[in-house]
Formats: sequence, C-alpha cells, structure tokens
Amino acid sequence: MNTGPTNPGPAWAGPAGAAATGAVVIGLDLGGTKIAAALFSADGTVLARHTRPTPARDGAAAVLDALAAAAAEVDPGRRATLLGVAAAGVVDPRSGMVTSATDSISGWAGTALAAGLAERTGLAVACDNDVRATAGPELAALPDHRGSLLFAAIGTGVGGALAVDGRMLHGSAGIAGHLGHLPSAEATGLPCTCGATGHLEVIASGPGITAHYERLTGTPADRLETVAARAAEGERAAVRAVTTGATAAGRVLGGLANALGPDRVVVGGGVPRIGGLYGDALAAAFAAELMPPLRGLLPEPPLFGHDAAVLGAAALTTTLPLHHPGALR
Amino acid sequence: MNTGPTNPGPAWAGPAGAAATGAVVIGLDLGGTKIAAALFSADGTVLARHTRPTPARDGAAAVLDALAAAAAEVDPGRRATLLGVAAAGVVDPRSGMVTSATDSISGWAGTALAAGLAERTGLAVACDNDVRATAGPELAALPDHRGSLLFAAIGTGVGGALAVDGRMLHGSAGIAGHLGHLPSAEATGLPCTCGATGHLEVIASGPGITAHYERLTGTPADRLETVAARAAEGERAAVRAVTTGATAAGRVLGGLANALGPDRVVVGGGVPRIGGLYGDALAAAFAAELMPPLRGLLPEPPLFGHDAAVLGAAALTTTLPLHHPGALR
Repeated sequence: MNTGPTNPGPAWAGPAGAAATGAVVIGLDLGGTKIAAALFSADGTVLARHTRPTPARDGAAAVLDALAAAAAEVDPGRRATLLGVAAAGVVDPRSGMVTSATDSISGWAGTALAAGLAERTGLAVACDNDVRATAGPELAALPDHRGSLLFAAIGTGVGGALAVDGRMLHGSAGIAGHLGHLPSAEATGLPCTCGATGHLEVIASGPGITAHYERLTGTPADRLETVAARAAEGERAAVRAVTTGATAAGRVLGGLANALGPDRVVVGGGVPRIGGLYGDALAAAFAAELMPPLRGLLPEPPLFGHDAAVLGAAALTTTLPLHHPGALR
Repeated sequence: MNTGPTNPGPAWAGPAGAAATGAVVIGLDLGGTKIAAALFSADGTVLARHTRPTPARDGAAAVLDALAAAAAEVDPGRRATLLGVAAAGVVDPRSGMVTSATDSISGWAGTALAAGLAERTGLAVACDNDVRATAGPELAALPDHRGSLLFAAIGTGVGGALAVDGRMLHGSAGIAGHLGHLPSAEATGLPCTCGATGHLEVIASGPGITAHYERLTGTPADRLETVAARAAEGERAAVRAVTTGATAAGRVLGGLANALGPDRVVVGGGVPRIGGLYGDALAAAFAAELMPPLRGLLPEPPLFGHDAAVLGAAALTTTLPLHHPGALR
C-alpha cells in the first residue's frame, strides 16, 4: 500500500489538470507575513513570480487589495483567465468565505475571499485553505486516482489535509484537516489555541516544543532552532522536548491512519526539517500505532518544495467551484 | 451545522436509492454469532426476515453457504436480483474481499465474500464492512447530499464509519472508520487487540470498561451490565470505569470532528444504551474538544433501529460496485 508516488510530471498532473483547460492561471498564497504569487502556463511552467508583505494589520479589504496587486504584478499582460488563492484560516471553497481565522490577519474571519478577488481582478476565482491547496499536488501525484492521502503540516501550528478515495475532504464549514486539534496524551491538561485543552498542537508545533523545553528546564528558549541545536548537542531536556513533540505527532497520525486508510502519509512544515531526531521519533511512534493492514506505511516528506503553495493554489481552479466577477451584484 | 436529519422517509432514501432501480433486494448481516437476512421491496418495505447462527468455527466456505441459505430462506420465489452483504472485519467493496479479520470467524480473512456469494446465489452482490453498511442509511438521511457524518459503534469493540462531503470513506484496504484504534490518554500503556498499546477500544468498549472496573477494584466483573448496574447504585469504581470509557470516546470523537467537520455525529452500539451516566460523560467530553466553528454539534443516537444492518446491507447495492456471478470463471 505504500508503493510511493509516481513521478509527479507536469505540475498540473491529476485527474482534472489545468493543462486540459489550456488556461494560463495565477496562483496566490496568503500567509500571515507574506503573499506569494506565480503565473503558470497551461503546462504548469512558472512564467513569473512575485512576493510582497501581507498588510496583516490593515483589515481584510487591504489584504484583498494586496492579493489583487500581486496578481497584477505577475500577469501585466493579462493573459490569465483563472486565479486560485490559498489562504490561512478555515476557508469554505463552496461559499468562497473565510469561515474562521486566528488574529494573525486582522478582521480576516468572515471575509468574502473569492468574490472579493473576482471583483478586483475580473478573473474566475477558486479558493481554499492553504494547507489543503499545498496538499493537492501531493494527492495528484498518487498513482491511483482513487488514492488516499494523510498530509500533516507541522510548523507554527499543526494543520493538515485529508484526501480519501481520490477526493480532498472539506467537511462542515471547510474545517476538515485540522489535525492539530485531536487529543494527545502528551498534551494532557495544556491549554490549546482553540480554547480546549490537551490538543496535539500544544505539544507538537514549533512553539509547543519550545514551550515544553521551557517547562522542563525552567529557562526561556527564544525559538525552536535553539532547542533543536541543544538537542543535537545531546542536552537531555532538549532531546526530550523534541522527541515528545515528534512522538505525539506520530501517535496521532498513526491513529488517524487507522481511521482513514491513507495510501501515503506526508509530513511537511518547518518542524520536521529540524533534523533526524525528530523524524526518527515521529516515524517510530507512527509505526507503533498501525493496524496490521497498514503495516509498512511510512511518513514521507513532501514531493514539492517552496513552490508547493502557489502551485497548489493555481491547481484549485481545476477541482473546486469557480466564483465569477459580478456574481454578487 | 447541527440542524438534524430530515425524516428518513423510505428506507432507500438517498442520492441513488434502490427505488430508482425498481429492484427487490436481499440484505444480509453477518456477525460473529448470527446471520440476519431480510428481503426488501423496491420501496424499502421488509417482505421477509430470517436469522440463523453463524457457523463461526467451520471455516469461510461454511459461512458463505450459511449466508446463501439465509438469502434463499427470505426469497423462496427468487424475486430478488441484487444482494447486499454487511460483514464483520475489514472489507474492501471494490475487490469484494475480506481484507483482514479477527478470529471471531475462523479463516475469515482473505475470503472472496462478494464472488463467493454471487456464485452461490446467482445474484449481483455488493459488500462492505458491517458498520459502514449500518451508517449508510444515517448518511442518506442527512438533508444535504453533500453532508458529512461521523458514526461510532461502541460495543464489544469500537468501530465506526466516516462519510465526508456526501461520500462514505473506504480508504486503503477498506480500513476507513476504525475509530477504536486512535490513541487515547485514558488508555495509555494498555495493550490493544490490534497489537498496539493505548488505543481507544481498550478503555471505551464494553469489555474495556469491564476490565477497567476490575483493575480499579481487584475483583472480577462478569460483564458490562454488572458494572453499569453498580454504577447506577453509585458505586464509585463502577462510576469511574463507565465515565472514563465515555470520556475517552467523547474526546477522540471530538478531536475527529475537528479533523473531519461532520454535520452529524452518531453514537450507536450496545455500550451507549447502558444509561445516562455514559451518554452525559461522552457528550461533555465531546463538547469540550470542539473548535469554534463546530460548537453546538452534539452526539446523537442512531435513527434506525434493529433493522439498520440488513437495511444498510441492502442499500449497498445502490452505491457500491456489484460483483456478478461467473466473473471469476
């Protein structure tokens, strides 16, 4: 079952690749600190790129303006007919709305993302959560178009995307994939960003590992890289904080694998890049959870690199509802 | 989001109801101790019922013979053209095989369930895991055909079924829905039937609650009903065993709700029927896990009663691949 992906081939590979539409497509990735944009030809070649800061404190209209400006920057000749946007927060592709969001972008929850961008650009717009968008090309790269993917993104938070039987899951309110808010024994009693306690994100995210190190040692650590460097030197509390976070993530992902039956498990985000200690602990904890039919399944790194988010954003236009300019008038 | 289901209407309700095919359909439910069979008219009326013991120690061929005999019993006039069978174990509807199974039926893993029944009955056969089959009518009863369902069955084991964006999930090897094999803080260190440790099933199933009571008291308890009766009398250890199992289930289901975004959460099986103490603890633990967009979602009992499994089995013929007699020759 863990036969591995085939060569992903052109970036648009998949059951409904944009190549089939012959369209030039803009991909936008909105994060809390920056907006990344790229223009893709019909065969998935990157024709132009652009990055600008997110005006995160200036309100939703300013963010939509900045997204539209980034789109104009990569496509001065107005060749694109479609625009895909991947955004932080809980996004509902059907309504085109940001269902809920943290305060990393002021006033972002409730924004009419797709309609707002369609108005500003004159393009047909598809939108989704950034992690689901990033996971799309990973799903398209599975050899079987009915395959299943468990995708985790472990960084400042713990997010993810789930695709089963060939389809990305969205769920009620577009919330599907929020893997960081499953309970974790390692996080028992610790308060979570969502208001509950004991969730995976509290112990397995970068800030979670750093905070755990601080609890173990009583001394502050400025950031995850500091803890990782101390762990690499063999400092006991640092090793424990890193392996606890990795073990917590591995256990929850293994349990989710039992519940979902993925053909491939991908663990991306910044935290897994801190080194082998983390990856080894995660893989061991993951393997220990698996039911017999899934044995041999291994967590893998993403196939796609730093272009994954804008690539996935552009590919949203091939699989999700399009929101057209003027639809709200 | 928890708007509740509409009246389920005819048993075949759903996007692809058998009523549309005009077919008379046999539903079979295979459990470790008994086989239940029913004949349904095209509008979902039960025309005949039959139950017989499962020859669980006589091998797979004897079980297939008994299933075929039960089908013949409810349809002596050979009116049915389709047969749906719901079976214990991990079942893959595409291959029609039992992917894996416990030893509650000897030699059951690896059985060609659909082909074996198609040969014996001459009918076109669809098959699936019994819990998924039972959940099918619950999904069909959702008002939105793109709705999502988290269905748990808590009894001798902890199983379940997941449907997202209107589709029942099967996953690799047909394993999707095995909710009992997610990690639970309440089960830390306890060995699970699957070979791992710390899984929900160990603490939340009927035998799990009974075993926990025995660990707390040092005295044997013959079965869950004994523990439940003592809990109803206020015996402290019994209350603790029941509420711990319920809390463990509620926490995992709440975390899964965050990851999947269900419109409806159904908790069935024998354990929830032991009384309000269980249900209250489960609902409280579930609610405490939910992210803001899901607040207000409540676990509910199943809409369908004791006919659910044979009804769901018959309905499989409207949504899953059919395996025809002679296909293997």
